[in-house]
Amino acid sequence: MGENATTHHTNSANNGANDNQIGFKSRVSVIGSGSWGSVAAKLVAFNTLNLSSFHDEVKMWVFEETLQSGEKLTDAINRTNENVKYLPGIKLGKNVIADPDLDNAVKDANMLVFVTPHQFIDNICKSLVGKVRSDAEAISLIKGMEVKIEGPCLISTYISEQLGINCSVLMGANLANEIAEEKFSEATVGYRNNREIAEQWVQLFTTPYFMVTPVQDVEGVELCGTLKNVVAIAAGFVDGLDMGNNTKAAIIRFGLREMREFCKLLFSSVKDDTFFESCGVADVITTCFGGRNRKVAEAFARNGGKRSFDELEAEMLQGQKLQGVTTVREVYEVLRHRGLLELFPLFATVHEICSGCLPPSAIVIYSEKKNIFPV
Amino acid sequence: MGENATTHHTNSANNGANDNQIGFKSRVSVIGSGSWGSVAAKLVAFNTLNLSSFHDEVKMWVFEETLQSGEKLTDAINRTNENVKYLPGIKLGKNVIADPDLDNAVKDANMLVFVTPHQFIDNICKSLVGKVRSDAEAISLIKGMEVKIEGPCLISTYISEQLGINCSVLMGANLANEIAEEKFSEATVGYRNNREIAEQWVQLFTTPYFMVTPVQDVEGVELCGTLKNVVAIAAGFVDGLDMGNNTKAAIIRFGLREMREFCKLLFSSVKDDTFFESCGVADVITTCFGGRNRKVAEAFARNGGKRSFDELEAEMLQGQKLQGVTTVREVYEVLRHRGLLELFPLFATVHEICSGCLPPSAIVIYSEKKNIFPV
Repeated sequence: MGENATTHHTNSANNGANDNQIGFKSRVSVIGSGSWGSVAAKLVAFNTLNLSSFHDEVKMWVFEETLQSGEKLTDAINRTNENVKYLPGIKLGKNVIADPDLDNAVKDANMLVFVTPHQFIDNICKSLVGKVRSDAEAISLIKGMEVKIEGPCLISTYISEQLGINCSVLMGANLANEIAEEKFSEATVGYRNNREIAEQWVQLFTTPYFMVTPVQDVEGVELCGTLKNVVAIAAGFVDGLDMGNNTKAAIIRFGLREMREFCKLLFSSVKDDTFFESCGVADVITTCFGGRNRKVAEAFARNGGKRSFDELEAEMLQGQKLQGVTTVREVYEVLRHRGLLELFPLFATVHEICSGCLPPSAIVIYSEKKNIFPV
Repeated sequence: MGENATTHHTNSANNGANDNQIGFKSRVSVIGSGSWGSVAAKLVAFNTLNLSSFHDEVKMWVFEETLQSGEKLTDAINRTNENVKYLPGIKLGKNVIADPDLDNAVKDANMLVFVTPHQFIDNICKSLVGKVRSDAEAISLIKGMEVKIEGPCLISTYISEQLGINCSVLMGANLANEIAEEKFSEATVGYRNNREIAEQWVQLFTTPYFMVTPVQDVEGVELCGTLKNVVAIAAGFVDGLDMGNNTKAAIIRFGLREMREFCKLLFSSVKDDTFFESCGVADVITTCFGGRNRKVAEAFARNGGKRSFDELEAEMLQGQKLQGVTTVREVYEVLRHRGLLELFPLFATVHEICSGCLPPSAIVIYSEKKNIFPV
């Protein structure tokens, strides 16, 4: 896949997003319109209006719904410039055009922003095959890949392979509602080879309240966005056990370290510095102090593990599933398959607690297996 | 100083703490008896009882006080095995012997644990000159050095130079009362050259609820313990401005990054990995979510900077001074002297806010100076 992407990348660098022909203007489409998708459209639309290298108009593909009023969601967005359902009260910019037709939304774009729930990306990509410009560049803002025995299915890789285009990622400590309110935030763009493409994405997303830093490490950046949820579950256990600040800080640190080691195990190209970026330490902190993975894990520990995650999720999340629980099960299988479980005591213990094999208090017992990463 | 310490170190490795002679037992003295000093004595005393390479008895030097009951503090400690004034309710171990006589407390020890408030270390060292064993090894648990124009005065260096002995450090996310309650915590030992000495300190402090990791980076570990307070002030400003989780995570990350860059600027030997240790990311997290630097800075921001730190400190800290405010002023002077202020926008801005030159809201405005550490 690495080579494949490189090839696409080199092509597109000559023809498309990175084109320096006089008068060439990039066209941006945002694929997805939940709260994060709407915020992404807002950030992008601010910049396309202000930067001469972009067409003003930003297409936003919206999964069409009929509102209680009887109006179509796309019509409501285009009439009010607000996503009245998923980000009410926030003006997206008049140059954001909601479009319920996926093919139409992407056909002219050479910069595609993917920001759908992760479970939909499969169908979206399949229906987009042959429909996107061959010189297009993509970026994925989607957190939550599957980690299979044969390796993690990076969503950026999936997009890249399905559509035959290069795909970067943008991850970070990005609670959508805070960015919508223009509270200062930052993010990390992970790119594969071409720094100029990365700079274009940085330009497209940066605003006075949103700072974006490029890192040449797609895999590290994207994996951070998934693995952090495992750390958040561990942090939730600590909260539920009332173990205090030292313990929580220690567990977060172990988690960050295992994230790093796990990423490097899977992709030798992953850089230590990535974990100092917004996608690393900052997103881990946000997720371990807020977020639903932490919250449900806290409830699980407060109940002494006697009510299952399934039960708590049903009660607390209206049927949604916790991503961290799924991810840690997948990570556990990968580690077991490779005989490396004992090098990842935190990840292993989180799974064993989630699956009911160990009590929540086990979260610190593994600490006896210390010095696993000797200095 | 580096060379000096190395020399002492090599000497002592042959004669003292590191001695492998059959029957040789290390003797430990703890110099200091506040809450952290008392907890340190408790940790150490647990191990000297259980490890054959240490004499059971742990001397603890106590700055003598007369309690309201009329009893001397040392007598009360020796009678109850508790530091009734500074860590009431916690048994230190019967083998902890409080001693009000500093010379007597250290004279037989070959392992000296320094854990006094930082403002007392000067006088203590001066009065100890010529009184400690020449083969002694020291460790400093004291956070808060002065950062002078000519470089930071590491407390470990000061101890080493004054007493002619090698000095390691122990730092980390260590709220004393949580460790006293045996809640799981961890710490980092920073050592200079001799791994075996480091292992001895690790052995002496490690308990089932206290995990210690050695790192060959005295400077990095010790500087973390001081610089984290500057980051905590920035975090407090964010809290006081109600700027949200993304902003706080971003500010903590910038802080951690500037800590690392500042340390490497002063000591090229400082390692990136040190900032992934307990003394780095974990202690920063604890301090940015708890701790008095954060708390007073929050109050400062809530008052829009209209009440000075001096005033708030007097009100909230009973006359104690915030270490972070002092440290950031010193750091600012060092950076100004070297013409490097613009490479450290967070540190610079924190000082400018503390000193009233900028309003608290400036904490994120500096963010426009981005890409200062290009990837």
